[in-house]
This record gives sequence, structure tokens and C-alpha cells, in this order.
Amino acid sequence: MDRPLEGVYPYLVSPVDPAGRVKEAVLARLVDHLVERGVHGLAPLGSTGEVAYLDWEQRRRIVQVVLEAARGRVPVVAGVESASTAAAVAQAQAFEAMGADGVVVILTSYFPLGEAQVAEHLRTVAAAVSCPVVLYANPRFTGVDLSLAVLERLAELPNVRYYKDATGDTGKLLTLVNRLGDRLRLFSASAHVPLFVFMLGGVGWMGGPACLIPEQSVRLYELARAGRWDEALALQRRLWALNAAFQRYSLAGCIKAGLEMQGFDVGGTLPPQPPLGPEARAEIAATLRDLGAL
Amino acid sequence: MDRPLEGVYPYLVSPVDPAGRVKEAVLARLVDHLVERGVHGLAPLGSTGEVAYLDWEQRRRIVQVVLEAARGRVPVVAGVESASTAAAVAQAQAFEAMGADGVVVILTSYFPLGEAQVAEHLRTVAAAVSCPVVLYANPRFTGVDLSLAVLERLAELPNVRYYKDATGDTGKLLTLVNRLGDRLRLFSASAHVPLFVFMLGGVGWMGGPACLIPEQSVRLYELARAGRWDEALALQRRLWALNAAFQRYSLAGCIKAGLEMQGFDVGGTLPPQPPLGPEARAEIAATLRDLGAL
Amino acid sequence: MDRPLEGVYPYLVSPVDPAGRVKEAVLARLVDHLVERGVHGLAPLGSTGEVAYLDWEQRRRIVQVVLEAARGRVPVVAGVESASTAAAVAQAQAFEAMGADGVVVILTSYFPLGEAQVAEHLRTVAAAVSCPVVLYANPRFTGVDLSLAVLERLAELPNVRYYKDATGDTGKLLTLVNRLGDRLRLFSASAHVPLFVFMLGGVGWMGGPACLIPEQSVRLYELARAGRWDEALALQRRLWALNAAFQRYSLAGCIKAGLEMQGFDVGGTLPPQPPLGPEARAEIAATLRDLGAL
Amino acid sequence: MDRPLEGVYPYLVSPVDPAGRVKEAVLARLVDHLVERGVHGLAPLGSTGEVAYLDWEQRRRIVQVVLEAARGRVPVVAGVESASTAAAVAQAQAFEAMGADGVVVILTSYFPLGEAQVAEHLRTVAAAVSCPVVLYANPRFTGVDLSLAVLERLAELPNVRYYKDATGDTGKLLTLVNRLGDRLRLFSASAHVPLFVFMLGGVGWMGGPACLIPEQSVRLYELARAGRWDEALALQRRLWALNAAFQRYSLAGCIKAGLEMQGFDVGGTLPPQPPLGPEARAEIAATLRDLGAL
Repeated sequence: MDRPLEGVYPYLVSPVDPAGRVKEAVLARLVDHLVERGVHGLAPLGSTGEVAYLDWEQRRRIVQVVLEAARGRVPVVAGVESASTAAAVAQAQAFEAMGADGVVVILTSYFPLGEAQVAEHLRTVAAAVSCPVVLYANPRFTGVDLSLAVLERLAELPNVRYYKDATGDTGKLLTLVNRLGDRLRLFSASAHVPLFVFMLGGVGWMGGPACLIPEQSVRLYELARAGRWDEALALQRRLWALNAAFQRYSLAGCIKAGLEMQGFDVGGTLPPQPPLGPEARAEIAATLRDLGAL
Repeated sequence: MDRPLEGVYPYLVSPVDPAGRVKEAVLARLVDHLVERGVHGLAPLGSTGEVAYLDWEQRRRIVQVVLEAARGRVPVVAGVESASTAAAVAQAQAFEAMGADGVVVILTSYFPLGEAQVAEHLRTVAAAVSCPVVLYANPRFTGVDLSLAVLERLAELPNVRYYKDATGDTGKLLTLVNRLGDRLRLFSASAHVPLFVFMLGGVGWMGGPACLIPEQSVRLYELARAGRWDEALALQRRLWALNAAFQRYSLAGCIKAGLEMQGFDVGGTLPPQPPLGPEARAEIAATLRDLGAL
Repeated sequence: MDRPLEGVYPYLVSPVDPAGRVKEAVLARLVDHLVERGVHGLAPLGSTGEVAYLDWEQRRRIVQVVLEAARGRVPVVAGVESASTAAAVAQAQAFEAMGADGVVVILTSYFPLGEAQVAEHLRTVAAAVSCPVVLYANPRFTGVDLSLAVLERLAELPNVRYYKDATGDTGKLLTLVNRLGDRLRLFSASAHVPLFVFMLGGVGWMGGPACLIPEQSVRLYELARAGRWDEALALQRRLWALNAAFQRYSLAGCIKAGLEMQGFDVGGTLPPQPPLGPEARAEIAATLRDLGAL
Repeated sequence: MDRPLEGVYPYLVSPVDPAGRVKEAVLARLVDHLVERGVHGLAPLGSTGEVAYLDWEQRRRIVQVVLEAARGRVPVVAGVESASTAAAVAQAQAFEAMGADGVVVILTSYFPLGEAQVAEHLRTVAAAVSCPVVLYANPRFTGVDLSLAVLERLAELPNVRYYKDATGDTGKLLTLVNRLGDRLRLFSASAHVPLFVFMLGGVGWMGGPACLIPEQSVRLYELARAGRWDEALALQRRLWALNAAFQRYSLAGCIKAGLEMQGFDVGGTLPPQPPLGPEARAEIAATLRDLGAL
């Protein structure tokens, strides 16, 4: 079934026009651009992709466009987002049938969930497909954390082989590597820890910034693979400036605005998220210029 | 356009079979039963209705069945739940076109929202329909609170006329009544404050327990309307026992289990919510018996 | 040992000059003034009394001055605040030896505490004195909540007879009254629920506002005791305006500023708490005037 | 005034007998032991030192004993913990007068504080002494975080030269180093990030575990100074096992128990903190043995 997932995977934005139609041409052009710049995979329908604001028809169309534009050159890992197990299973199976190389499971919550329910949801989704499954914890946005006990149980399933961490909890990552390092491969999802994740043996970095600075992100990955930690750290410190802007403003809004500056007419964020103001745009432009990305 | 909304509105559960089909006959029978027991309105697709776990086709079908079974005897107020403004508008317009007497807007969040965005979402949904709109705050489940400033701004729209509170923040309710009491009518959404809300001039109580104890809930409402506060309080204290069980276990699970005991084959909760265990069932059975509802 | 505690207990502010000396004369005069206005007891060293910002010598002196000024006309209930059990025991024993009629135990935390530790702290303090003990939950400030299980265990001690609630969790209060109503008497500590607490059979109201509006607070208590709920509610709604100001600014700062306006030179808040700005002062002045208290 | 602070500083436990007396002999012997094992400084009265549970007389005595036992061989940096600015100033001045080489300011809160108040507290304490001041953020225990704006303002004071981070917020650390790296030197306070902090140019590690494993902690520091990152990481992963135990049980309790096993009769934790159970003791013993520290 599979190529191993590793390296830099940009979280693709979701270009949608005001009438709700996916802007297919610009999305395809962005995919082509990123693959040519050396990214190792593509991750549509993540947080940066505003997945929680898209209906099923939009999600399906986006994955289709990305798969067609990627033409098998790199793996495509699609986001499966839902509070409902039935919906998550349906999404995952549809993406696998369309040819996705893996899925990232994003469990959101309405009523609070216990550990057993979180594990059962993930297990059910994983058992419904044969492609690799990336577990994902981002409790700040989803209200659901993945405990070590849950990760341990899930890691027993044959196709659950990756864990993407957006908590930045470096202590948990250490424990995870100490206990599950041979079974669950780590992806970093936050721009402040990729280096730390790489030092711990992590296999890659999935993130929004790589949409805007694909070559620099790949460079960081390569420096880390070569054990050139001092250079890698110096580069991460520079790249972090971009993320500092993302933290102050809306994540998807910043990346969409930066892509517009780079010539990709991806449009604005999906309401009720706020449009980006002029001050934020100026800061992003300055940072991109400073990084040689504009 | 409208009958004023007031009185007791049960939050209807959503009977769905394991294959995802709405159990239409049992839902229609439940509606008929509740209307005959004297409830003043019906509220499908709320928290108790597990709305966040239903896809659009299920939601649409549930509202249709409820409207048909109600046959205009009481108003039907349908829940509009989404993190996306476009989706919320589409839902609200569809429900109005189907004949709903009002909508409850339930704004969930993925990325955190500022006050301006919350207000803009609600304003856009309200402007898209002409039926009455019930604002709803339940930050524990949705991650979105409605500040007084937001409520004040929204209350200027002609069809925004109700506020249903599930925060239990009695201080905020006092301020609200002091400042907006003539423009925004209050519904209680929590079983521990209906009496307090009635004392403040509130017009009704929307809640899950009224599915199981419709007559007792109506009785509480009538005692409050008659200013018989001591009797009302004594009754509320008895009814609270039922809610104390709901707080310990899953809300929808408790009400569905109780309805099964009362002869309505509504099925279990939607995964990944947990099924109810035997201890919880025994406690609910005992409480219902104690309240003369079994 | 004792007079039952009931009625309106103002939380006394702690007048301290910039050099750290207790302003004894003004404190004694304030005590005299409040007793003459009809309050039923006095509560030095609570949240309003900025107890967490006072050293032991200041605390001891304040209780002494209050006891002497009260001259036995009303009970004095002193606050015992500490994260350490040994310190809390020492404080409670000292206050009892000085003649205090009871103590309010305020457990603050540094490291998080489990239920067993919270119960053990309270039990140890209660067992070290023979005067009545008022349990107190204000998790927003202290980081410690008192669960029903803890309250239930503590209520078995002979001198633990009161519970003062600052959570505003009306559901919890209902459960508490249903389960412990005959053993633990309720005081309200929040200005938005005294009426609700009185309806549930509560015996009194301890709060900061009664420093500024003692007669109006006593009037609310008397209306509630007489079952004149509609008048009581109308009055509570008016009094609430004062608390709405307290919520926006600093609690102790508002009450100290109001007392200064009323002619009590109590000084400002203790650093690092901020001094009150002119806008807040104007709002407090207007509210006090509106309530006939200036 | 000063030697630069750098390297490994164990947070000393506070040995106190059940009657509240400082166990001076064992504390002096522990200090001697740690200095002989190569630690670069000593930090009494931190979180590990249960500072929030000690009265002033105990705190004063502990610093005195540590200073006398250290005999100037390494710097001693004492913790200044209070919610009150006046108390913090008094503590800092007393410690400086006693000969402390620096102070760590631990601001706890009762009423929530705004940024301006936090800055004003720290500025006032720093201005009251001439010794170096270590800023410290541990919002989980103290309820107070230090924003970048506050750190930026404080770094302008001549004797505010260190920042010790216990948030583990690696993104904030990156921003801090990018913006204030030349003015504020970093200490790590958490066992999961010392390596990361060292990579960013941090000067040291203050922590509880170094009481139990001084030589291993110093070894980690030296590997990091030599840029031997792979070896350093391997060691940090091993040491982390000890901290994983601390996170599950009580921090001070674990370190005191481990010291007892190593022959230092430091006694148990201060109530209401729980004593350590046999399971936790067994786990600590096993981990210490595994690390060659028992």
C-alpha cells in the first residue's frame, strides 16, 4: 500500500470563492509550485486548510484537485475532520478510494469525550481503511487531547504509524519517544519545535508555513537530517519570525495573504473568520521579503 | 410571521439507527406524545438532539418529521449548528422554507473568534431569514460565549428576540435583564435556573428533561407564572434530581435511555459518544419512578 | 460556645497605610457605623479584606481592632487564609483565643491538591478550634474547589456548620440543599445569588457590598425572610448595579473607593493591585448616589 | 556586585520537622554534598523548596543555613515568594543583606493581575536590591504569566538579567531569544527543555532533579556547552525518566523521598500536600538505581 511518509508536508490552504466554489486552477498551480520547490508531500484539509469550515462537497473536490495536480510525484495525506465517527469513516474511505496516500484524523468534540471514546473513534476510523493513518493532537482547537495511553493502544493497529504533535509539549514528546519510538513516527506540526522533533528522531514536519517558504522548510529538514544542528537552529530562528506573525493574527488568513502576495489568487478566509487587516499584511510582506520569499 | 415563543420546549432527541437512518415513526410518536402532554413548543436539533453528530440529510429529515407530526399545534424551533457562516445561513433558510417557526443559532468554533466575528456570524444568519431567531450561549460545549456587547448589538435586529442561556451565570442574567429586558426575551436552558429565570421575567424553558417529564416541566412553568414561588421551588428541587444524573453521565444518553424505558425506541447515542452503562440506567429509572414518570 | 450565625455580614476592608500600619481608628469607626446600620455580623480578612496581601501581624491587629470595636454587639467571623495547614491552624487558634465567634477557612494552593488533601486540611483546622467553622469555595481566586464529597465528609464534624458559596453554581447549590440541607447552613457570597440562596433556605449573605450599602443589604435579607420575593427581587436587581461595577474593576479597590467617598479614610488597595482610575470612581459614585448611599 | 550565574542550580528541598523546625544539620550536609558533586550554584526556596508552605522565620533560617554551608564556594540564589509587593521587597532585601548572590522572584496571585501590575511588582522588587534578579514564570502554579512585553520592559533594569522559564513554551523562548537574547539570559526550569534552552544559548538549568542526580545534570550541561548535541540528547532522554515520575506524583514529595533513600533525612512534604505512597517510592527507587544514583 505504501510509501513511507517523511519530510516536509505543507498544509494546503483551501481556495474557495465567495459563492462557495473551489478555485481549482489556483489550487492546482499551487500544488505544482510546491512540488517543484521540493516538498516531500502534501496535506490538504488541515487546520490551515480551514477544514472545519468546508462542507463535504468542497472537501471532496479539494482532495481530487490536489491528487490530480500532484500526479503521484509526492504522497497526498488528506484531513478527516468530524465530531462524528460515522462521518469520519465515510470521509476516510472516500479519500482512500480517490487515491490518497494517507489520512490525518482530526477529532473535534461537542460533548467532552473520555479516553475510551477517543480511542474507539480513532480505532474505528483506522480499521475502516488500509492506508497509513496519522494521529493528530491539537487540543487548543479541537478540544480533544491524545493521552499516552490512547497513543499506546492505537499504535498496536498496523496502519496507525504516525503521530503529529501540535501541543508543543516537549516533555510528552520525550516520554513518547522513550516508550513508543519504534512504533509511532513523529511529525512536528508546530514551527517552534521541528528541530527538537528532528533531534528526537522525528521523520518530518507538517505545517502551514511551508506553503509560503517551501525551500527554506526543506532546507531546515535537510540540515537536521545531516546532524548540522547549529545551522539548523539558526535557520529555525529566522523562520520563526514568520510564525510569530501567524500567532498574533489568524493562521489561515496569514498564509492566504502571503500566497496572494506571491501571485496565487487563493482568496480570503472563510467567514466567520476575520479578513486580515493592513497592518498584518505589511508585517507578513516584510517577513517574507526578509526570508527571500517575496 | 409569528406566534410569540414561550413556555416549555423540550429539546428533542434524534433517533437514528446504526445505519444512519432517522427512525421516523418513533420520532413522530414522541412529538405527538409531548404535544398531548401540554408542552408549548418543540426544539429539534439542539445539544440534546446531538446536532453536532448529524449530517445535513439527517438534520433536514428530522425537522421535516417533527413539523409534520406537530401539525401546527405548537411552534417548532430548529437548531442551526455550524462553525461556518455559509453553512449556518443555508441551514436557517432551509428550515424556514420548510415551515419552522424559528431557529436557535448554535455557533461552534475551530479557530477562536473575537467578539466582532461572533456578532457578524449571528447578524448574517439573522438577516438571511425572517423568522424569529433565538441566540444561544453554551461556551462549555461550543467554545463561544456571547458577551453583553454582542447581545446588545444583535438585539437591534428585528427578528432577534430571544436569548437562551446555558451558562448559569446568574450575574450576567441580572445585568442582561437590567439592560436589555424589554428587547430580548429570556429562555432558560439549564435545569438549575428556570425558576430564577422566570423570576427575572423569562418567558420559557428549553431543555432536554422535558422530553421525559413534560407534565412536571409544564407544571413548574405554570406555578412560576402564577407567582407561587415556594411551590415552584419545591418542585424544581425534586426535578433537579433528574438533572443531577444527567450531569454525571452523558446528557443525550440519559434522555434516550429514559425514553426507551418509557416505551419510545429511540436507540442509543451517536458514536463516539459512549453508550450508557447499567448503573446510570438504574439511577435514571429510579429517578423517573420517583417523579411519577415511569 | 455560640450564637448561630445568620443575616448580613459585611466583608470588612483592611485599611493599611503606605508604611504597612493598620489604620485602627478608621477601622473601628467603620465597624461602629456598620453595626449601627443593622448588620448582623462582621467578617474581617476575607477576599474584600485583601487577606492574601497581609502579613500575620497586620491580620492579628485587624481582628483585635474589629473585636474591640464590635464590643460583642454582633458576631465576628475572621478569615483564615493559607496554603499551609500548619499556618491555618495557628491562625484559627489565635483568632479563637482572641474571642472571634467563628472562622472562615480560605484554602489557597500552590501545588494542585486532590480531594483527600483538601478535606484533610479543612478537617485539621476545624479540629483545632471549637468555634463554628465556615467552609468557603472560591476556586477562581484560590484555585481550590470544594466538591460535594468533601462537603459531605466535613459536615460530619460538630463545629463545621456553614458553607459560603462564591461559585454561583446554582445547580451545585440545589444538590447541596437536597443532600446536606439539614447539616450545613448556606451563606451566599455573591451579590447575584443571595435571593436564590435565601429561597433555598440559606441563612445569610457575606459580601463586600454590605460595607457600602448596609441598610439596603439588610432590607434585602428581611424581605427574603418575609417571603416577599417580588419586592426582594426588585431590590436585588437595583443592588446588582453596584456589583456590576465591582466585576469590571478591582473588588477591594471599588469598596475602598466608595468608603472614602462616604467619609471613611481607608486608603487604597495593597500593591501590586492597581489603584482605581477616575472612570471607575465616577461610576461607583453615580451608583452609590442612585442607591441613596452617598 | 557579582559573579555571573550559570550552570546547574539544584532547587533545594526544605527539610522541616513536624513541629515546624528547620532540620539544619541535614540541610547543611545536603548543600555540602551537592557542591562537592559539582553543581554551579544553589537555589533554596523555590517550588521544590515548598516555599509557599513556609513562614518567614523558616524561610530566613533556611537561607542562612544554606549560605553558611556553601561558604562562598558557589552562588546562592534565594526565592522571594509572595502575592504582596511589600512582602516581596522585605524578603529580597533581607536575603541580600544576609549575603545571597541573587534572588528569584516568584509572584503568586489572589486577585488576577494585569500586565502593568505584574511589571510594577517586579520592577519594585528589583529596584529594592542591587543583586541580580531572576525573573520566573510558572503560571500553572502561580497563576501569573510573564508576557514578552513585561519581560522587555523589565530587561531595561540593570540588575534584571536572567529569565527562568517553566512554561515549556518553546515558541515563546524562540521569540524571546530573537528579541531579548543579548539582555536577558535564559535558565531552563523544566527537565524536558534544558537541551533546547542550551541550544538557544541558555546559560543554565535550575531544577529539582539536580538534588538527586547532581553529577548527571552537570554532565548534561557540559555536553551541551561542548556542542555534543547527540550525546546530550541521549542523556536527557535517560534523565527524563526521573521527571516523568515527578509529573505523576508530587514534585517535592518525590525529591524528598529520593533524598531519604540516598541517606539524607529531609522528612516528608509539608501538609496539606500528600505524603508519597509506596508505589511512587518504588518507582523513584528503580529510576534512581537505573541512573546510578542509588
